[in-house]
Amino acid sequence: MAVKTVINAAGRPVPLEINGQPAIPFKGVGNHRPDGRKYSPPIPTCSDYPDDGNKVVSSLAEALRKCGLCDGMTISTHHHLRDGDLVSNKVFELASEMKVKDLVWFPSASFPCNDPVISYLNDGTINRIEGSMNGPLGRYVSEGRMKGTAVLRSHGGRVQAIQDGEVKIDIAVLTAPTADSFGNAKGTGGTSACGVIGYAKADSMYAGKVIVVTDNLIDFPCFPMEIEGIYVDYVVVVDKIGVPEKIVSGTTRVTNSPDRLLIAEMTASFLEKSGILKNGVTMQAGAGGTSLAIAVFVHRIMKNKGWKSKFGFGGSTKYMVEMLTDGQMDFILDAQAFDLESVRSIDNNPGHIPYSVFNAYNYHSKGNLTSMMDIMILGATEVDLNFNGNVVTHSDGYLLHGIGGWQNCLHARNVILPIPLFRDRIPVIVDEVTTLCGPGELIDVIITERGIAINPLRQDLIESVKGSGLPLKTIGELKDEAEKICGKPQKPVFEEDIVAAVKWVDGTVIDVIRKIKS
Amino acid sequence: MAVKTVINAAGRPVPLEINGQPAIPFKGVGNHRPDGRKYSPPIPTCSDYPDDGNKVVSSLAEALRKCGLCDGMTISTHHHLRDGDLVSNKVFELASEMKVKDLVWFPSASFPCNDPVISYLNDGTINRIEGSMNGPLGRYVSEGRMKGTAVLRSHGGRVQAIQDGEVKIDIAVLTAPTADSFGNAKGTGGTSACGVIGYAKADSMYAGKVIVVTDNLIDFPCFPMEIEGIYVDYVVVVDKIGVPEKIVSGTTRVTNSPDRLLIAEMTASFLEKSGILKNGVTMQAGAGGTSLAIAVFVHRIMKNKGWKSKFGFGGSTKYMVEMLTDGQMDFILDAQAFDLESVRSIDNNPGHIPYSVFNAYNYHSKGNLTSMMDIMILGATEVDLNFNGNVVTHSDGYLLHGIGGWQNCLHARNVILPIPLFRDRIPVIVDEVTTLCGPGELIDVIITERGIAINPLRQDLIESVKGSGLPLKTIGELKDEAEKICGKPQKPVFEEDIVAAVKWVDGTVIDVIRKIKS
Repeated sequence: MAVKTVINAAGRPVPLEINGQPAIPFKGVGNHRPDGRKYSPPIPTCSDYPDDGNKVVSSLAEALRKCGLCDGMTISTHHHLRDGDLVSNKVFELASEMKVKDLVWFPSASFPCNDPVISYLNDGTINRIEGSMNGPLGRYVSEGRMKGTAVLRSHGGRVQAIQDGEVKIDIAVLTAPTADSFGNAKGTGGTSACGVIGYAKADSMYAGKVIVVTDNLIDFPCFPMEIEGIYVDYVVVVDKIGVPEKIVSGTTRVTNSPDRLLIAEMTASFLEKSGILKNGVTMQAGAGGTSLAIAVFVHRIMKNKGWKSKFGFGGSTKYMVEMLTDGQMDFILDAQAFDLESVRSIDNNPGHIPYSVFNAYNYHSKGNLTSMMDIMILGATEVDLNFNGNVVTHSDGYLLHGIGGWQNCLHARNVILPIPLFRDRIPVIVDEVTTLCGPGELIDVIITERGIAINPLRQDLIESVKGSGLPLKTIGELKDEAEKICGKPQKPVFEEDIVAAVKWVDGTVIDVIRKIKS
Repeated sequence: MAVKTVINAAGRPVPLEINGQPAIPFKGVGNHRPDGRKYSPPIPTCSDYPDDGNKVVSSLAEALRKCGLCDGMTISTHHHLRDGDLVSNKVFELASEMKVKDLVWFPSASFPCNDPVISYLNDGTINRIEGSMNGPLGRYVSEGRMKGTAVLRSHGGRVQAIQDGEVKIDIAVLTAPTADSFGNAKGTGGTSACGVIGYAKADSMYAGKVIVVTDNLIDFPCFPMEIEGIYVDYVVVVDKIGVPEKIVSGTTRVTNSPDRLLIAEMTASFLEKSGILKNGVTMQAGAGGTSLAIAVFVHRIMKNKGWKSKFGFGGSTKYMVEMLTDGQMDFILDAQAFDLESVRSIDNNPGHIPYSVFNAYNYHSKGNLTSMMDIMILGATEVDLNFNGNVVTHSDGYLLHGIGGWQNCLHARNVILPIPLFRDRIPVIVDEVTTLCGPGELIDVIITERGIAINPLRQDLIESVKGSGLPLKTIGELKDEAEKICGKPQKPVFEEDIVAAVKWVDGTVIDVIRKIKS
């Protein structure tokens, strides 16, 4: 629908109301002061729970009924089973059978395996999704077909929204590779091991009702208690919560594209020559092929110099596990495991530690891990001349990705985006990002196969690599080069209707996504 | 002061207001339904905290000033440093120097080392203590010398009161044997190791401001994070937080009194003959000489039978650690460590796990550990003909002990009180307990050196030991025997003034303590 908007501090028009709830326009980085108190769920009493601690009920349907599932409720799930999740869709299949309408689905992320929920959006079971939407789900939203307005949040923003009561979860349905009958649960063990399930912690603490779904029920006590049974109402045992080979990719691999390898090498070289890479460094990279290649190059440099990393924050991969077992990293703090080696490592290496999103990413907290990190390697679908970043839409205007931890990670000391100059002959550096996800003041360096652009705000970094022989350019020069090769891309055409809002880490609205003109 | 009272469900007159706040009379076990929501502290923001995560300030005085210490505030501390605590008194010494008045001290327990706070009660710095008071502090209260009314809560009741907002902590001052500059903290390491600091978790989560005081600052990240830095405002480094030899007793020893050994032997025999002791049993005992003797006897029986315990809940002792390392116990779930062997074990045995009071004891939760326990061995200062128990006052009417986890533990399946028939020629079994701490319906068996009394409500237990040769008596018979030897003790004489209230696990008032008539 078309609504009245105001211009926020980033110059983007945003609405003052989303889905009937008041919304606060972005005020600039660090400028919004929250008032009020954390959200608090109702006080439970042990007298409502079995003395023997056994909360197992016969089926997910029974658990949902006992939780009082009804129209308009907010249902949360976590994404640790990634593309192998067999439970989320089932919740809405059951809700549809029970003729429940207008639910809000609040996942910590969605994957292609969740595309079937489109039929529950179509039949009115689900009003909207507040969470990441990729591929067909994103396209569905961009085409204006979802009844409610989507709300996109970072991983940390999701926890902030739960904690602050912006989103009130009525029922959390939390899959657990291992659990006991009291509801204590963890991400290791069984046939659906995913490593850690820390994204579910906020849901368990703040939801009105909590259901744990497992295919590996063990004797009390289940340790480590990533989900604590004191927050859990019901436990459901099913045959399978996930498809193992889709939960973790099995192997994560470094890129073998020559261009991407060049970017990775230039990134490692930049880190070394600028002096950012040093003994004791803390670094976070993703699980994409370029990031992994960077990790391998960095590992090599550090080994040669006899340097050690204090800790790495995961998204863990086998490359981090190697550094840990090599003695070149003291700790892996882990919010999610990307491959089988990482899943195994969590169980076996005392220095590989489950680490909740509360500690890593929640901006409405007494400090975050990310602002303590030295090096943050991130991607983007678009970057603009002001170093602003986009990670949710493509240049054709379609919503195609979630934010993940991207916005949260921007708070690191040195934020570096190794990106190709163009993808499928479409330039990545543009005049102005289609959707603003992260303000340019937080993005320090763009590294492409044809040169490195350092944000003018970081004169210290520009100084540090003077005379280093690195191919330094302005971001304008990089953009011109790309356009010389690919031509200037056409801007997407939108209708007035806002189909999604993008929140900043503090809960304010930094931008919106509009319906694609058909 | 003398106030209007009503008769609660246990037949005790209790006030409807304590320290100017409304109070709910005890309604019977499991009968009080909490309404409302959990308490929630103000929403913080990372923009108020240092990006590098370093929250160290120069002194405790500076931290208190930065926290805005002022008249009438509630200051909490934990008791894991036991009689070796060097920090709690210091807080009030500083407050007194700063001319702050009418503070509420809310410790998780107090020890003889805290007796000096009497001078801060005298000079008006402290209005009242809400927590356990032993020896001189208890006597001070019983003599009506404390300005406010004391409130006594169990360990679980304290967490319930914090969670429910009955007690709003303004500043939590939490000592930590090891911490990092972000405020992550744990109970092991350094020269003041106490094993675990789980009693501080609720304080850290719900207090307005949180100060961590340590004498062992380590590099980030400090693991396991018993206190999470995301809840911490300031970190203070001092020379010494505690006196090591007073933090843990060094050794815990079984009794060598022939009478106590007889009681212990009879208890073990009762557990065996009644069939309560079995393979997979879960049991909790204390660290007193009789309890330890029972643990040793039970260990022997189980070893002979080839039985294993699933887990023990601690207050851990070397006797539990022996069962763990022997392979006769799968897990120790630990809320506090009583001796050096336990402290060491937490660091070295993966099956020895820090376990917070939230999970063990908080009745306003979705289940508790205690109701899952098979055998609970507890003490009492008095038991009456209705099996009611008293743990806070002696028969002379003086407040001399805290409740500890005693009330919470009453929810176990089989609650057994091995107690001497008399102490210092004063009978322990009385017509009516001086102070009601636990309703008789939850106390199953009294074992004395002269016989065993089973609560008539537990006909199943009475049946189970028929013909076993155990010296079964009624509780009346036991009382008569004691009185034949010691004579009937004189009842204490009280004035009208209520000096302390005793809360039940659900926050209702089960009894009060009145001023001793001088």
